[in-house]
Amino acid sequence: MPELRRDPIVGRWVVIDTDHPQGPGDFPKEDHSSSRKATCQFCPGREHFTPAEVSALRPKESQADGPGWMVRTVANKFPALSLEGPVEKEAAGMFDQMSGVGAHEVVIETPDHDKNLADLTPEEMGFVLGQFVGRSRDLAKDPRHKYVCIFKNFGASAGATVEHAHSQIIALPTVPKAVLEELRGAVGYYGAQKRCVFCDVIEQEYKDRERIVIENNAFLAFCPYAPRYAFELWIIPKAHNAFFSSLDGDALKDLSTLLLDILRRMRSLLSNPSYNFYIHTAPLKYERPERYHWHIEIIPKLTRSIGFEWGTGLHITPTFPQVAAKHYRDARP
Amino acid sequence: MPELRRDPIVGRWVVIDTDHPQGPGDFPKEDHSSSRKATCQFCPGREHFTPAEVSALRPKESQADGPGWMVRTVANKFPALSLEGPVEKEAAGMFDQMSGVGAHEVVIETPDHDKNLADLTPEEMGFVLGQFVGRSRDLAKDPRHKYVCIFKNFGASAGATVEHAHSQIIALPTVPKAVLEELRGAVGYYGAQKRCVFCDVIEQEYKDRERIVIENNAFLAFCPYAPRYAFELWIIPKAHNAFFSSLDGDALKDLSTLLLDILRRMRSLLSNPSYNFYIHTAPLKYERPERYHWHIEIIPKLTRSIGFEWGTGLHITPTFPQVAAKHYRDARP
Repeated sequence: MPELRRDPIVGRWVVIDTDHPQGPGDFPKEDHSSSRKATCQFCPGREHFTPAEVSALRPKESQADGPGWMVRTVANKFPALSLEGPVEKEAAGMFDQMSGVGAHEVVIETPDHDKNLADLTPEEMGFVLGQFVGRSRDLAKDPRHKYVCIFKNFGASAGATVEHAHSQIIALPTVPKAVLEELRGAVGYYGAQKRCVFCDVIEQEYKDRERIVIENNAFLAFCPYAPRYAFELWIIPKAHNAFFSSLDGDALKDLSTLLLDILRRMRSLLSNPSYNFYIHTAPLKYERPERYHWHIEIIPKLTRSIGFEWGTGLHITPTFPQVAAKHYRDARP
Repeated sequence: MPELRRDPIVGRWVVIDTDHPQGPGDFPKEDHSSSRKATCQFCPGREHFTPAEVSALRPKESQADGPGWMVRTVANKFPALSLEGPVEKEAAGMFDQMSGVGAHEVVIETPDHDKNLADLTPEEMGFVLGQFVGRSRDLAKDPRHKYVCIFKNFGASAGATVEHAHSQIIALPTVPKAVLEELRGAVGYYGAQKRCVFCDVIEQEYKDRERIVIENNAFLAFCPYAPRYAFELWIIPKAHNAFFSSLDGDALKDLSTLLLDILRRMRSLLSNPSYNFYIHTAPLKYERPERYHWHIEIIPKLTRSIGFEWGTGLHITPTFPQVAAKHYRDARP
């Protein structure tokens, strides 16, 4: 019998299709072999092909927009939003529009064209997360920005169009819908229970145990109870915290180690799948931080997303989260 | 300057990326050539390969589950939901689950393996819509069902795994999230304005004119103000009506003609793209039908959906709807 499961945060029901459970070997494989190294604009020595760097980790003696960097953040050459101008709202009959002001940046995660995020050392992963945090803090200073989205597309099926390892940062004059839905759910839950719904999910995960993949001092990785996608994973700080941008010190080190471990398990278990991850954090200057809890959602791109899911918001998932979690636990990191 | 636009029904903001407008010729082309005719289980003469038909339009002298049919609806051989058993809800710690009871059917749209929906005559399109209506009414009689989803995936990129022309019907014990969101918006709007938000959108479309593609007596086709996807299209009955299942008589004929015209324009304009469509209708026995307005959303699958959109709910669209609408108006039907 298939099972419907309700996500406790946004209230979304998903269908777990138990009649055709899919194991890690049942999905099509994808080739990520590198072919454009000779002309890659993200490689060291070709810094002049990208817009000027907005941030980089590089030795003191090296020059901005020259080689030598360990990680480098530049404006996106093809930004979805414009850096200049005020945020102007306007009505158009019954409709509303707003000027598309914001920032769109690319974090080049390593100088090495042949490496991906899962190949980095924990220290190098820390450099990447450090860029995420630094840019979050910096973009938060612009009063036009209401939200900073940080996400990664790895592999063609996940939407990556450049093969050199990179992630993206978009600062927006509005809060994206997925986060608004989480906030609505979390605020409602807090109103009724006086507790953070994400903290309660963590507690439930410890009670049930079966969906936990790994943990360390500051972070927990688990497969959510009502997953939208097969082998979906969440990483969440164990201590309540609404803002990703507060990540620092030992917690940053813990996240580096844990994220790396998870990405390597995913690679070995699922034959190096394309994947996306998004950092969900509270809106900038959010005034009810006791109600929200930042986290990372990681989605291996295993099945073609069917139109049904886009059009209805109903996801049909072929793998139970406790089955996925066991596979992840048994996988080689 | 890119523009953010707010959908007036669900409140979703989308980004129109004006700096890189994409015209109809700028998207990758997809090959839909047929290759599995010899073993197709949906072809006449192979009826015994599918589950028994639940409905079909066929001459009186022909036999159920034999050839001769014009359109044929069968249970999905690999259903996402189970036909048998009660809807049982259960708490699992802080989580909720429900038994996955429902129906999953396939409408085989034509006996001809080499035709697709856009190749049918208006009369044949009427047969398909007639199946949608008939099955909707029939599935509504089961008290376990709260909603009937009708949708089509055409082409591999849109999630079709069988090449013989078909669409799908899923009856659910819950209302899918996308419809709940529309209902929430529509109920809120009605509360404030005492008018149907969809009716007001239609009126605004007539005022603005630029997003209208075509219309006939009963239906209007337009590109929505805040599209999630390039060349997204909506078809909506001009007269207020919450329930798709009430479609009948002249209105059914009008929809057949208009849907066919739209699918043919899409095919000639966008090089026969993969596409999805979904019929959004009120939940079964919905008691506030003055607040909701059924419609069809049609999404040509032109760009790889990037992870960003799934993870954030923020869509970045490369084509303004008034530009898309003009292209559709000028296209060969």
